[in-house]
Amino acid sequence: MNIIGINTASKSYPIFIEENVIESFIASFNKKKILVVTDSNISLLYPSLLSRLKNMGAIIHVMPFGERSKNAEELNKIYSTLLTNNFNRSSTLVALGGGVIGDITGYAAATFMRGISLVQIPTTLLAMVDSSIGGKVAINHLLGKNMIGVFKQPDAVYIDPNFLKTLPKEERHCGMAEIVKHAIIKNEHYFSFLEKHYDSIINLEKNTLLIETIIESCKIKKQVVEEDEYEDGIRAILNYGHTLGHALETATNYDYYKHGQAVAYGMMFAGHLSKHFMGLSGEDLIRQNKLLKKIQKPPIPEFLSIEQVESTMMKDKKNSDLKLNKKKTNPCQFVLIEKIGLAHPKTISIELNKSSNGFNSLLRQFLKENGARNLV
Amino acid sequence: MNIIGINTASKSYPIFIEENVIESFIASFNKKKILVVTDSNISLLYPSLLSRLKNMGAIIHVMPFGERSKNAEELNKIYSTLLTNNFNRSSTLVALGGGVIGDITGYAAATFMRGISLVQIPTTLLAMVDSSIGGKVAINHLLGKNMIGVFKQPDAVYIDPNFLKTLPKEERHCGMAEIVKHAIIKNEHYFSFLEKHYDSIINLEKNTLLIETIIESCKIKKQVVEEDEYEDGIRAILNYGHTLGHALETATNYDYYKHGQAVAYGMMFAGHLSKHFMGLSGEDLIRQNKLLKKIQKPPIPEFLSIEQVESTMMKDKKNSDLKLNKKKTNPCQFVLIEKIGLAHPKTISIELNKSSNGFNSLLRQFLKENGARNLV
Repeated sequence: MNIIGINTASKSYPIFIEENVIESFIASFNKKKILVVTDSNISLLYPSLLSRLKNMGAIIHVMPFGERSKNAEELNKIYSTLLTNNFNRSSTLVALGGGVIGDITGYAAATFMRGISLVQIPTTLLAMVDSSIGGKVAINHLLGKNMIGVFKQPDAVYIDPNFLKTLPKEERHCGMAEIVKHAIIKNEHYFSFLEKHYDSIINLEKNTLLIETIIESCKIKKQVVEEDEYEDGIRAILNYGHTLGHALETATNYDYYKHGQAVAYGMMFAGHLSKHFMGLSGEDLIRQNKLLKKIQKPPIPEFLSIEQVESTMMKDKKNSDLKLNKKKTNPCQFVLIEKIGLAHPKTISIELNKSSNGFNSLLRQFLKENGARNLV
Repeated sequence: MNIIGINTASKSYPIFIEENVIESFIASFNKKKILVVTDSNISLLYPSLLSRLKNMGAIIHVMPFGERSKNAEELNKIYSTLLTNNFNRSSTLVALGGGVIGDITGYAAATFMRGISLVQIPTTLLAMVDSSIGGKVAINHLLGKNMIGVFKQPDAVYIDPNFLKTLPKEERHCGMAEIVKHAIIKNEHYFSFLEKHYDSIINLEKNTLLIETIIESCKIKKQVVEEDEYEDGIRAILNYGHTLGHALETATNYDYYKHGQAVAYGMMFAGHLSKHFMGLSGEDLIRQNKLLKKIQKPPIPEFLSIEQVESTMMKDKKNSDLKLNKKKTNPCQFVLIEKIGLAHPKTISIELNKSSNGFNSLLRQFLKENGARNLV
């Protein structure tokens, strides 16, 4: 069994990575009162797993699939299920699903009766290597993604690569976006490995390669999270590609891009900024973008509004203070790379409605190159 | 200036206690982006204070007064105000009001963008000595009071006894319920002081006595909270009187009792249980109840359902595991006292629908003695 231990100030917990590790979870479940939160997709794909859990006494709470369900209404339904079934402080919530399920279930576990136990069982590649580890949980607000959240480390994470067999290829590409991100910000050697094996991993050709990739990404996440649990500093580098990524998701109402696709664009743009503002070499930029182009994604919508993208970026919660300074520029926090394997947080000033500005013209150019047509 | 420092594992912060300390708060407010959350009562009573804050750049968010506002809908409105005004991680939320405002604002501060700064400015006696200190924040769920919450220590607490001048006497009695509780669970000497000065304090006759009382209660709260920030053990004694208290509030839909009134009944009942289950002397019980009778409160409603009271007590989040055991009894956590000044958590088994049971007959008798008429 592959076990990675995460040791943060608030909690230490294991990540188990193995085929059929779901059986270890089931074996560990000794009459504890548990609520399994999952979504309509998982419940269609794995009816016998859910039946087994139910027969062992678990309560199953099924949510509608998708990012749009990560809201206060669905959260409230989880609370209601907990309360009507007399759950209490010694009960456990289990998140069985992708990032959405992990996030909303983690948030519920953090806030129900001021915190109960949480087990993460990620079923998507993205959740396995990213969102299930490190304790960032959140729900969306109508006015912004992940705006309502807390830090809630799980008690254990069970990563069973068998779940990936039913994951659509598009979703596997999304997971690869975060995996490639790990390599870009922290490990050039791992980046080479991914250049070599991207196609094999995405096609689930070799289980050993797949598990090696998951372990490597979990280790990078472990390193960053242990150093800075509450994102007061270096943990911010995990947001590489996320400033524009989140803005693209918001500007398209969360129903056009998948998270990984938007982040892939975000990383390509962050690469351009890195060349402009942090001396990233042209070679590294080309190398990065060549790998990122393998991540399949729809083009930037033709009629995207650049103003909306910019104002959403400035509302990003990563910005520490949005007051206009004397020059009427807005500081906006990005993560840039000096080279492949080395990232730094970097604040860039955005002058709104001013196309002559360096940042603005880079953004405009980038959006146009990737499909936008009508940028006013 | 009276300053009490609270030092928990998660944060150290000062409590400032003094007449006009609100001026110190205003002076400290140097262009930081702040949102002041308050209620319709405070905004009617202190229009000039709110105008001053507004003129200094604060945003003011006014909620409808009362416990019924402590819900997810009102919480969402606070988030919306924060987002539409571009608040971010370095902004501060200020709770200006009683326990409801402190709780919902504290919860918002804990969860907005995974946590922003929080200042508590309690305006009721209850909030001054109890809810503004120690970091327990929550909102209500339709199915239970304070069910959704987290721990969020404030960055500072400003206690200005001048606010009490506009506080209705009934509310001052409610504050005294928690104050008397502090004495009962932790300090017999303080209990004697309250026996002697209750009337003077409640009538705001002497500012020095009032401030001495607030300081003494804050010190007891400090002691308990520092020893057990997350209520894993001894902090539970602060729940003295709260098991029945919460159940009475829930059984009457939160619109009949004020919190302090319900807790006063709860303490009287916990006293009876203490005599029965923990050897509390008859003298101490009489002494406790004599002081508690000074706290003005409406009678137990004639048509109260004892079943509802019991089942609500068993749903109380203080119960660590509600599974029926073999005897079909339900363990229910209470806090009992051995003598005035010394409290212990204690689990009592409740046999539902069985009047012969010791607990049940004590509860029935207590409710009847205090006004209930139709107990089936």
